[in-house]
Amino acid sequence: MDKRTRAIIVGWGNIGKGVYTAIKQNSDMRLVGIISRRPEKVSVKNVDVKRYSLDNLNKLTADVAILCGGSATDLPTQGPTCAKFFNTVDSFDTHAKIPEYYATMDEAAKNSGNVAVISTGWDPGTFSLERVLADAFLPGSEPAGFYGLSKSGGLSMGHSDAIRRVEGVTDARQYTHAIPETIERAKKGKKVSSSEMHWRECVVVAEKDADKIAIEKKIVNMPNYFAPYKTTVKFVTQEVLDRDYSSMPHDGIVIATALMGNGKRGVIEYQNQWDSNPDATANILVAHARAAHKLSINGNSGAFTILDIPPAFLSPRNKIELLENFM
Amino acid sequence: MDKRTRAIIVGWGNIGKGVYTAIKQNSDMRLVGIISRRPEKVSVKNVDVKRYSLDNLNKLTADVAILCGGSATDLPTQGPTCAKFFNTVDSFDTHAKIPEYYATMDEAAKNSGNVAVISTGWDPGTFSLERVLADAFLPGSEPAGFYGLSKSGGLSMGHSDAIRRVEGVTDARQYTHAIPETIERAKKGKKVSSSEMHWRECVVVAEKDADKIAIEKKIVNMPNYFAPYKTTVKFVTQEVLDRDYSSMPHDGIVIATALMGNGKRGVIEYQNQWDSNPDATANILVAHARAAHKLSINGNSGAFTILDIPPAFLSPRNKIELLENFM
Repeated sequence: MDKRTRAIIVGWGNIGKGVYTAIKQNSDMRLVGIISRRPEKVSVKNVDVKRYSLDNLNKLTADVAILCGGSATDLPTQGPTCAKFFNTVDSFDTHAKIPEYYATMDEAAKNSGNVAVISTGWDPGTFSLERVLADAFLPGSEPAGFYGLSKSGGLSMGHSDAIRRVEGVTDARQYTHAIPETIERAKKGKKVSSSEMHWRECVVVAEKDADKIAIEKKIVNMPNYFAPYKTTVKFVTQEVLDRDYSSMPHDGIVIATALMGNGKRGVIEYQNQWDSNPDATANILVAHARAAHKLSINGNSGAFTILDIPPAFLSPRNKIELLENFM
Repeated sequence: MDKRTRAIIVGWGNIGKGVYTAIKQNSDMRLVGIISRRPEKVSVKNVDVKRYSLDNLNKLTADVAILCGGSATDLPTQGPTCAKFFNTVDSFDTHAKIPEYYATMDEAAKNSGNVAVISTGWDPGTFSLERVLADAFLPGSEPAGFYGLSKSGGLSMGHSDAIRRVEGVTDARQYTHAIPETIERAKKGKKVSSSEMHWRECVVVAEKDADKIAIEKKIVNMPNYFAPYKTTVKFVTQEVLDRDYSSMPHDGIVIATALMGNGKRGVIEYQNQWDSNPDATANILVAHARAAHKLSINGNSGAFTILDIPPAFLSPRNKIELLENFM
């Protein structure tokens, strides 16, 4: 009998494509279907998997559905719908709405007896886990997160979208850069404010006759997104944007420093570098898809975050192997 | 009603003393007793806690016993004995014997309906967790651990003991140093062998008329401990050893690098720096003592490692707080 976890991908964007390749690297998983709004547009080299539209959910059998849609419009509806039929895992990443989304998914999954692992990836996800661990091991450390430590910085989809909504802008990319001096201060245990942690590099394509000075002013003064930060704006042609700014690297670090009970210092750092942000999310989603299946086999239902899952459930390795080779 | 977790400390060495101060930093925990072979020797400033000998276990009530003895001789007997009476947590750190110790503690704890969290601290412990996570998120990455990255290196108790057993040696400290070039190679995803990862600095006090050349030869050629590594031996007086080598810093890093399914690189690093190694272990033990209590309240029994525990159980914070502020 084939004991592999049968996964379906829901949503064929960057993350869905990343999950497609990630599953191939995990010998205990297999892909049994791709669900898309327009399944006829799903093109994969040497396709070995069936494609379905979203209204075919009830005809499919799978151990877990990996939801690869966005948090703004896809997941709030696709999440609860898919949880009726399958164990699910998703990367819902609107931090402020996670408690609400958790409640929605918990209800949907409990009603159907399924497991819904929500909000995973690297942040929210593994970085959330590391914040909780550092806070538990170093009370009072107030773990801080920095993003875009590498030279290229990290591409922020949300901030890029915000720039694109400015009048006269046709396309844009926003790269977040950590400020190294502030990282050093955080490592020494100093309190740091969010505006001194990062600066923001905006690469913008404007309409032909647009008022570039007005666009720049609108961007740098945009509340929450840019106003609190040092922000640079550079105008380029669409051609240059596509040529020089097409990769999607990202990286970040969680830093926690505190004095232990006796005045001795402890420093915990967790750092990730990803050549491709959506592929990082995809890889982490696949490990959590395995966990969702195991949680379900063990009789659980309802919503889970990475904080609720025994870490061994994320691993393809069995208990003996973990005790012998990883402890 | 006082809902704090009632903890007892078993063993009054460096780790036990660290646990004593660490508990004070965790407002959901309180210390209800210290158990020692010689309770009359347990001296604590402003003592606010009762002291007992090891044969008083059956007279004590506590939610968890934090076992602070050593792995060589204390824990193999104290572990199963304490698990008869209490939920326990320990830092059993003889890596090769963890599967055997797990089985012993699992049986003892299941028989009494208690929870036994074993082998926690930073390695084994949080570093084990990070190895498992990196292996799950980056298949094929083969996570590598380096120790002693800081200038002083990291004090290894096991290697210090091995030197002390050499004829003519009266005292010794062994500092492990990571080799920076090998760390850089590991970050690039190259395979590295253990002998090129670290070098070993031995600081030795010899008997007055000892043959120092013979001692040095015995040390550097000692199989497993020193023979495979670049090793330096420096002779000092007991006075110098006590004055310049009395602190117990340690630090380390777990590095995992792999190409994701599509050829894009991912790098995960987890780094710790501890001014005091036993205090680091103590802080992590206290968080796991909380988890042991929660696991027990939830109806579990038997042995657990950090890999088996939902991370939220390690945190003093409640579910809402974690969802709102840490995800």
